Amino acid sequence: MHTLLNEQSSVTDAALKAVAHMPTKSLPALMDSAFTSALADADYMRIAVWLASKSYDEGGCPIGAVIVDSITGEILGKGHNTLVQDNDPYDHGETSAMRDAGRIDFSRTTLYTSLSPCGVCAKLISMRGFRRVVVGDVTNASGTEEQLRQEGIHVDEFEDSQGVDLYARFRSEKPKQDLEDWLGVSAL
Amino acid sequence: MHTLLNEQSSVTDAALKAVAHMPTKSLPALMDSAFTSALADADYMRIAVWLASKSYDEGGCPIGAVIVDSITGEILGKGHNTLVQDNDPYDHGETSAMRDAGRIDFSRTTLYTSLSPCGVCAKLISMRGFRRVVVGDVTNASGTEEQLRQEGIHVDEFEDSQGVDLYARFRSEKPKQDLEDWLGVSAL
Repeated sequence: MHTLLNEQSSVTDAALKAVAHMPTKSLPALMDSAFTSALADADYMRIAVWLASKSYDEGGCPIGAVIVDSITGEILGKGHNTLVQDNDPYDHGETSAMRDAGRIDFSRTTLYTSLSPCGVCAKLISMRGFRRVVVGDVTNASGTEEQLRQEGIHVDEFEDSQGVDLYARFRSEKPKQDLEDWLGVSAL
Repeated sequence: MHTLLNEQSSVTDAALKAVAHMPTKSLPALMDSAFTSALADADYMRIAVWLASKSYDEGGCPIGAVIVDSITGEILGKGHNTLVQDNDPYDHGETSAMRDAGRIDFSRTTLYTSLSPCGVCAKLISMRGFRRVVVGDVTNASGTEEQLRQEGIHVDEFEDSQGVDLYARFRSEKPKQDLEDWLGVSAL
């Protein structure tokens, strides 16, 4: 076997955590296509949640996203919110994952986001041509799902309880940081 | 005199070009507060246009933006589109300038953008609390000005012919790059 994760590997939480932390361009050094083909929606969402968890551990907002080739299942981009880490007024999980993916045709991809998109990201998702979005938390935020559907995007709500619990904990611990991430410093 | 640009300096195009290229945090090494206080809307817009010109020279999309303290006139952030330079599907002049400014209260600032904002940036400008936006080109693009006004933002249209000509030239030279910047690779 040339990669740690291969056709004989189980899709464990530890494996998905390693995938989340590995730079996207280095993923072929960690997992082969047989392992990739075993991944399902719940697994990609868990990777997004592990990215959210990484951001939480860094003192940031716990929101992650993964962009996947809708046909092959290959991970093309991933990232997490960097409001705190990069001092960036608007770098959400979605924008972070798009930047990681680069200038590709997003209409052939699926976007997994650990939290319901904000209004800006919803507009961006539409203008960048996404056709499928999977949302991992409509408990702590919601509302843009209908907007996306009205623009012809297929939206699946697929809650990950680990992600929902993490975001609720963050919001109770750092309500101001949460508000700033949605509406900016002027809203505080 | 401790800075190259001071109360005895004229506000020339060469001075504004140097301001555009100087990293924001280093601006106090180039200009003092007396020079800053002599700057008017047309000058800030010309700085945005010089940033657009810098991006054009790099092979990128020629759109720049400057964020200024609405009271003191101090430049707090600036930047230009980096679609090509950073391989970033969505880094417009506005987002680039916001990231440069960091986590500040944008309601106390004025945003100068060399081109009418796209729909995503218009939403972001609103959600980040801006109260005044100056648009330097409503010839090559327009439409979000009314949307911004309806959300209570004061919008001034202040065309800079150098910027308008530059964007028209870019669009005729690289129509696909222009389209991608607005609507993504899937629109090509």
